[in-house]
Amino acid sequence: MPNPTAAMLVIGDEILSGRTRDANMFHLAGELAKAGIDLREVRVVSDDAPAIIGAVRALSGLFDHVFTSGGIGPTHDDITADCIAEAFDQSIDVRDDARALLVEAYTRRGAKVTEARLRMARIPEHAVLIENPVSTAPGFSVGNVHVMAGVPAVFEAMVASVLPKLTGGTPLSSASLRVMRAESDIAAPLRALATECPDLSFGSYPFHSKDGRYGANVVVRGADADDVAEALIRLKELFPDA
Amino acid sequence: MPNPTAAMLVIGDEILSGRTRDANMFHLAGELAKAGIDLREVRVVSDDAPAIIGAVRALSGLFDHVFTSGGIGPTHDDITADCIAEAFDQSIDVRDDARALLVEAYTRRGAKVTEARLRMARIPEHAVLIENPVSTAPGFSVGNVHVMAGVPAVFEAMVASVLPKLTGGTPLSSASLRVMRAESDIAAPLRALATECPDLSFGSYPFHSKDGRYGANVVVRGADADDVAEALIRLKELFPDA
Repeated sequence: MPNPTAAMLVIGDEILSGRTRDANMFHLAGELAKAGIDLREVRVVSDDAPAIIGAVRALSGLFDHVFTSGGIGPTHDDITADCIAEAFDQSIDVRDDARALLVEAYTRRGAKVTEARLRMARIPEHAVLIENPVSTAPGFSVGNVHVMAGVPAVFEAMVASVLPKLTGGTPLSSASLRVMRAESDIAAPLRALATECPDLSFGSYPFHSKDGRYGANVVVRGADADDVAEALIRLKELFPDA
Repeated sequence: MPNPTAAMLVIGDEILSGRTRDANMFHLAGELAKAGIDLREVRVVSDDAPAIIGAVRALSGLFDHVFTSGGIGPTHDDITADCIAEAFDQSIDVRDDARALLVEAYTRRGAKVTEARLRMARIPEHAVLIENPVSTAPGFSVGNVHVMAGVPAVFEAMVASVLPKLTGGTPLSSASLRVMRAESDIAAPLRALATECPDLSFGSYPFHSKDGRYGANVVVRGADADDVAEALIRLKELFPDA
């Protein structure tokens, strides 16, 4: 059976404005690879309702799972929960189970549950809550869309809450070889080997080192660890100077 | 006149597999902000022809400019140029102008122009070349799509080649204030100020500091620098402990 597929939707202006360098995409990609879920696409959109709703609908139809980050806090620019409700034609309001979580946490800290804080308990009617052990305000899943916070510590905690509940696949095995030759020098033998091993995928990622030399990391990936190990031996024979 | 809009398309498995943390997205976002071009969406897709062609067509129709990175090297997994040609119904082959650039550069270094290297001269028939001062093999523009390499040093050089040729807009002014209070505490006054200033956009980006404290960076953006400066004064009055 092929591995489940996934997409990620990053919501918010931080990355698009050049203010912030992505961290959540990198984290999720690594966790999905370990779980055997194939991340096929990432989209980053701004805090704009039509853009969010359109992307959620498109990705939810194309992939087995969609993971979103950002836009579920208490401020006026946090519109993700309302957009998800609209994308799935569900109503949304402050929900008792989410409110109870917030009341308990704020009361414990001796803080008041203000209207702004209650905004974080606005959850689509048929959503399942995702636990947030860091700062209480929950994420939620609607259908195959898992809605999580943008703050990296909270996002990572929510990923850890939701991933074990999903059915994963076979984690890909991979091996890589750093070849200090121009990519154009290794292209022909690499193509021949890739043609010979149709069950494996071979990627070549060129780089320039700081001292002005260049080379390529050749990465081989596949479901069968033995096949990958054998391909690595073949690669080392092809590029003995690696 | 509103600023031109843009999207970025990142092509390749490196980010989706969790192997590499993005750098090009962060670089381009910063350069576009300075040029007054509004980056509205980013998509990351794998080395898969239908995914690339579909994304190019969609983004090219939605935005004034599309910037792609990755997949124009000499190896078998470099399929971007062929996908762009197909997306725009153009033929593609080794083109004389691109071949001349490569022949000149390789001859200068005393290297041969192999078939693999010539693959980097495959350019759609009506494309305009983008100069690559780092490693010669050119990028290219077809219509409103600008196709660049994935290696960060080369990507950055190509962005520097192509951006001055595009008509930019008004760079947004921005100012930010670091408030050491929970986002839910600042949500109500921030919403009120945002409603009062419809020409400015106010974003709130919560964070957890390493010592366990939390707060939010409040960012105000707008076309008019004086309006932004005035809003910052208002923010400081609202949050005097910032």
